[in-house]
Amino acid sequence: MADKIRVGIVGYGVIGKRVADAVQLQPDMDVTGVADIIKDARLEIAQKKGYPIYASIPDLKEEMQKAGFEVVGILEDLVKESDIIIDCTPAGIPPKNFPLYEKYHRKIIVQGGEKDHVVQKSFSTFANYADCVNLEKIRVVSCNTTGIARILAPLMVTNEIEDVFVALARRAADPVRTNRGPINGVVPVLGISHHGPDVITVFPELNDKIYSLAVAASFTLSHVHMIKIKVKNPIDRKELISMWKKYPRIIVRRGKDGFNDTAQLVEYYRDLGRPRYDRPEVFIWEETINSDEKGNIYLIYDVHMESIPIPENIDAVRCLMGHTDVYKTVKLTDKSLGIFESEYDYNAKLPGDSPR
Amino acid sequence: MADKIRVGIVGYGVIGKRVADAVQLQPDMDVTGVADIIKDARLEIAQKKGYPIYASIPDLKEEMQKAGFEVVGILEDLVKESDIIIDCTPAGIPPKNFPLYEKYHRKIIVQGGEKDHVVQKSFSTFANYADCVNLEKIRVVSCNTTGIARILAPLMVTNEIEDVFVALARRAADPVRTNRGPINGVVPVLGISHHGPDVITVFPELNDKIYSLAVAASFTLSHVHMIKIKVKNPIDRKELISMWKKYPRIIVRRGKDGFNDTAQLVEYYRDLGRPRYDRPEVFIWEETINSDEKGNIYLIYDVHMESIPIPENIDAVRCLMGHTDVYKTVKLTDKSLGIFESEYDYNAKLPGDSPR
Amino acid sequence: MADKIRVGIVGYGVIGKRVADAVQLQPDMDVTGVADIIKDARLEIAQKKGYPIYASIPDLKEEMQKAGFEVVGILEDLVKESDIIIDCTPAGIPPKNFPLYEKYHRKIIVQGGEKDHVVQKSFSTFANYADCVNLEKIRVVSCNTTGIARILAPLMVTNEIEDVFVALARRAADPVRTNRGPINGVVPVLGISHHGPDVITVFPELNDKIYSLAVAASFTLSHVHMIKIKVKNPIDRKELISMWKKYPRIIVRRGKDGFNDTAQLVEYYRDLGRPRYDRPEVFIWEETINSDEKGNIYLIYDVHMESIPIPENIDAVRCLMGHTDVYKTVKLTDKSLGIFESEYDYNAKLPGDSPR
Amino acid sequence: MADKIRVGIVGYGVIGKRVADAVQLQPDMDVTGVADIIKDARLEIAQKKGYPIYASIPDLKEEMQKAGFEVVGILEDLVKESDIIIDCTPAGIPPKNFPLYEKYHRKIIVQGGEKDHVVQKSFSTFANYADCVNLEKIRVVSCNTTGIARILAPLMVTNEIEDVFVALARRAADPVRTNRGPINGVVPVLGISHHGPDVITVFPELNDKIYSLAVAASFTLSHVHMIKIKVKNPIDRKELISMWKKYPRIIVRRGKDGFNDTAQLVEYYRDLGRPRYDRPEVFIWEETINSDEKGNIYLIYDVHMESIPIPENIDAVRCLMGHTDVYKTVKLTDKSLGIFESEYDYNAKLPGDSPR
Repeated sequence: MADKIRVGIVGYGVIGKRVADAVQLQPDMDVTGVADIIKDARLEIAQKKGYPIYASIPDLKEEMQKAGFEVVGILEDLVKESDIIIDCTPAGIPPKNFPLYEKYHRKIIVQGGEKDHVVQKSFSTFANYADCVNLEKIRVVSCNTTGIARILAPLMVTNEIEDVFVALARRAADPVRTNRGPINGVVPVLGISHHGPDVITVFPELNDKIYSLAVAASFTLSHVHMIKIKVKNPIDRKELISMWKKYPRIIVRRGKDGFNDTAQLVEYYRDLGRPRYDRPEVFIWEETINSDEKGNIYLIYDVHMESIPIPENIDAVRCLMGHTDVYKTVKLTDKSLGIFESEYDYNAKLPGDSPR
Repeated sequence: MADKIRVGIVGYGVIGKRVADAVQLQPDMDVTGVADIIKDARLEIAQKKGYPIYASIPDLKEEMQKAGFEVVGILEDLVKESDIIIDCTPAGIPPKNFPLYEKYHRKIIVQGGEKDHVVQKSFSTFANYADCVNLEKIRVVSCNTTGIARILAPLMVTNEIEDVFVALARRAADPVRTNRGPINGVVPVLGISHHGPDVITVFPELNDKIYSLAVAASFTLSHVHMIKIKVKNPIDRKELISMWKKYPRIIVRRGKDGFNDTAQLVEYYRDLGRPRYDRPEVFIWEETINSDEKGNIYLIYDVHMESIPIPENIDAVRCLMGHTDVYKTVKLTDKSLGIFESEYDYNAKLPGDSPR
Repeated sequence: MADKIRVGIVGYGVIGKRVADAVQLQPDMDVTGVADIIKDARLEIAQKKGYPIYASIPDLKEEMQKAGFEVVGILEDLVKESDIIIDCTPAGIPPKNFPLYEKYHRKIIVQGGEKDHVVQKSFSTFANYADCVNLEKIRVVSCNTTGIARILAPLMVTNEIEDVFVALARRAADPVRTNRGPINGVVPVLGISHHGPDVITVFPELNDKIYSLAVAASFTLSHVHMIKIKVKNPIDRKELISMWKKYPRIIVRRGKDGFNDTAQLVEYYRDLGRPRYDRPEVFIWEETINSDEKGNIYLIYDVHMESIPIPENIDAVRCLMGHTDVYKTVKLTDKSLGIFESEYDYNAKLPGDSPR
Repeated sequence: MADKIRVGIVGYGVIGKRVADAVQLQPDMDVTGVADIIKDARLEIAQKKGYPIYASIPDLKEEMQKAGFEVVGILEDLVKESDIIIDCTPAGIPPKNFPLYEKYHRKIIVQGGEKDHVVQKSFSTFANYADCVNLEKIRVVSCNTTGIARILAPLMVTNEIEDVFVALARRAADPVRTNRGPINGVVPVLGISHHGPDVITVFPELNDKIYSLAVAASFTLSHVHMIKIKVKNPIDRKELISMWKKYPRIIVRRGKDGFNDTAQLVEYYRDLGRPRYDRPEVFIWEETINSDEKGNIYLIYDVHMESIPIPENIDAVRCLMGHTDVYKTVKLTDKSLGIFESEYDYNAKLPGDSPR
């Protein structure tokens, strides 16, 4: 590609800082800058990494400068410098920023906390890449929805899903949010959790076929899903293992090989030297995969909330900028981010292969 | 009843101490004593409560006495004094005690950690009371299985269950077991969890129709179940609420009324003055109850692992001693233990109403 | 006493509900009612216990009634009915209520979260009872300060304290506050913690002689203090054990006897049948008590934040109402609350024995 | 240096794997291999990093090979290939390995869990480097002792320490040890903790002058120390801040700048890209540093148990191999490990500068 895509990141928090680092690693993209309102150690990191810093609120620019940061401009300046904006601010804020982005006709990506209806389409690479090519404004679905979408995707292509029930044990807070609990106890979501309906935004064919319940508890490392999927054509346990092993951004390994729990999994990634011990791959415990002759499939998998949607954000950039080849973008994204290579046959069909 | 049933409790741990207190509250039972091998603060409690203390291992009797406890005999003495033994020792130990109990032809109850095959039948009041009347040796199923059995029981009578999938978020350790973790992280059961198969031991008609997955995490207050039940005849959400509200040992309340999480639930029981904040009732979050026209039912409920099987243990005593009226024993047990009165119509059919 | 002291409790939260129950148990006091603004399960408890309920904010009375509660009046009505008000609302609110209390010339007690300067004196039974007799408005110091005061009190009488350094490992949230963390991590108080200075409000002779540091972490059961006290006259370890064993509201026991940690301690109180497993006694781990010939004393003790200041609140009522005999009130309070009897010689001198 | 020091690492656990990575980064050292008995994901890491793998127990070699690992020899082979062995196996095992190491006259380093008396001397760079030069067998003291030694070191040189009391809030388990608790609760060390006495093994002049108490609780990120130090010559707070800021392997920063707790601190290191988010620097919360005119000094600091002793292990290698210049080794170690540069004046005196 001749010119690199100029990507501006708004909101340098848990997701924003990872998106910035991921964009920086792409051969076809440039970070034009990061915009935020903070002026503490978190912003030090942006400065150490050399990202141009912009003040999201113009009036704060001076304060941020006084705190010792080199602030090169305000949000509007960043928008001008960018082809596309990935807005990673907390839910509710991005729509307030839309007029500014649209004034300069910038492409827009928002995160999964945001409502589906504020964008043209919700996006997940393995669900509906092709449907989103060249759109103006999309939402990359949340970590849990991304995880579910990856798990279901290969079954959507080769089988037919009749029913999904997913029960989530959610981390109550990201590691850095020390003010949040519970310390001891379990907090149920009082009703259907948003995850089932959210999956339908990227897999509309699952309408009326997916339900989710969730509880949050006292851990910070990841979400863990216990899922039951009913497919039309019963499928053997070994085939399932092989299917997911071959799929991109999914790892299938045995707990007894040193992955007995999420903490051991984190330790493995720490030891691997992955930045921030991030695990953008969905991890399935192989021993939990089971199926029966009625078409029921059961498994437990891990979803690292901080990093799972990052590769999908990168894919989304290319998608909005008109790249039609989902295989190529997945390969490029995964290689640049050091994601474990799958044995995926990239000539095979992906769910998002062609517009539906 | 003329003579009280003489009940000996072996193992004065988390379950045993509760069973002893519950037996003591029955108008038709007497605690003949408690047997254990400990000699610390836990045993102080037994002494303060006035339970005759026996040494489970004869050689330890002297040591226990030296530690200041009044030990009135050894295990065999307790067996002689009792009509029935409730063995609450850790899994694996009860079968070693069986010969001693059988030498004196005593009725035997073991707990849910024990294997099903070591007894004549696994027991759960609302599942198969009638099948167990007058048996010699039974197992009261574990806390989680008891909870599931109660939830399913009313549906077994009035409907037909086609399929059950239960996902458990388990407390990793009882509050007193401070040496156990995890502190941060989630530990999946690597395969089908034992709960589904265990339910089948009391509801054989669910064979091939129930599956369970489980994770343990960093909390100590209770287990929380997220369940999907498919019944033959679709049933309205309101009807479900009413059905469970009327059922014994089940509470249905709204989270938003001050039960947003398990810690608030515990606080309520602390405030009620329940001993040890025990919650022998299964607690269903009303807002989570949902159903659809396909016959799917969804809900989340709380299972207090320390106390849930206690009333079933009391029922089991009467069952083995030949009391055939399950309604009467449930009423008697619940009243004596201060369990919330349900609006249950005790003339209606219970699943265990008649032998199957 | 002819007439019972009429005590109104404002704020039916963690402290307020315990104060109400404690007042109710006093032979010389009556609960005139509890005032609050809630209308959920917490208030159900007040109603179940038969406490007259008042609306702290007049406009909420109707709402509370609609929610099914029998609300007999508003805050002003409660004030009229009472001789003394124990205000247990969150810090900052009591001073706003003062004008109303003062309009009716009611005695006032506030809790330890409140600032010292808003009252006439801060109060702690074993520190300065005699100084507070017949005052109008006092503050019962917080749980941690109460704990420290009890530990230091016997040394204040029989020895001379030269220096105190206390390091607190604080529970980050009460059990019921599930929205608060941290889940994993430690939060230091950034500077001197308020505990040292707070002790000086009841022991002015410790001015410039006490310092405190504190961290909060992921547990809910109690605060644990590690303390170093330097006294003028070196004192033998055995003497120390005996001294604290004899002192009221202090327990000294060996960890290895079944009190290895705070969870085992809680279990003991659950087993004892103490309401809400409350531990109004300070618990010292005997093995940690140590001293040297320089006059240094070291120990670790447990402070149950929810219940420690409750007996002191009861004492405070009598103190304000003019009862001068601190021995008698301590004995009466402790007996009524079921606090472990100490071997305290009530003819011996207490620090608050005579005005200083 | 002409020849690189050949370093063999025995025990590839929490410490061993970090020591291996640190040795690998030294310009003057080579990892000859790592020996262990495991054959799971942890060993995969060693293989991915290219460390020659040895079987610590000869009989396990074949099993490890069958599990897919390239095992190049047994422990004795590794010993032959090495000039020095860093034994990082659990306490109690190293002394059993000593005869083998000594058979080949290898220098030996053991870790802080081991007893002091099994080696010639306990070692800590800033305490007694000079005393250990050319010794045969030393112990690098534990994480907490290392942390305390660093904090005290600059005061030992420029002032005189009269008294130290340190209260530790300990992480109950390393992140990977998910089987350990407590989940909720605090576990006191029942007596003086080993830390005080352990400091004396490297700072004998503190004999009778240091005391420590400790509790463990439900967090995994680090130990946090609350310390009171009494020095002969009172020292100003600002001077203290400046003193520690300039000292190697110590960071002093304000909590309010984004380091409010240990989780935020970890996040900073994750963001920095430090391997495994390791923090070999002691971190002092600047706001907690305080002092008075009596010579008392107070502060709270963080000790990352997994990585704090790693640089000291590297120093220890050079020390045993005869390098006398402690400044040079500290500089070399710190630079190679990416430790934050201090403003330390390496011409100034270090405590271990000359034999005492």
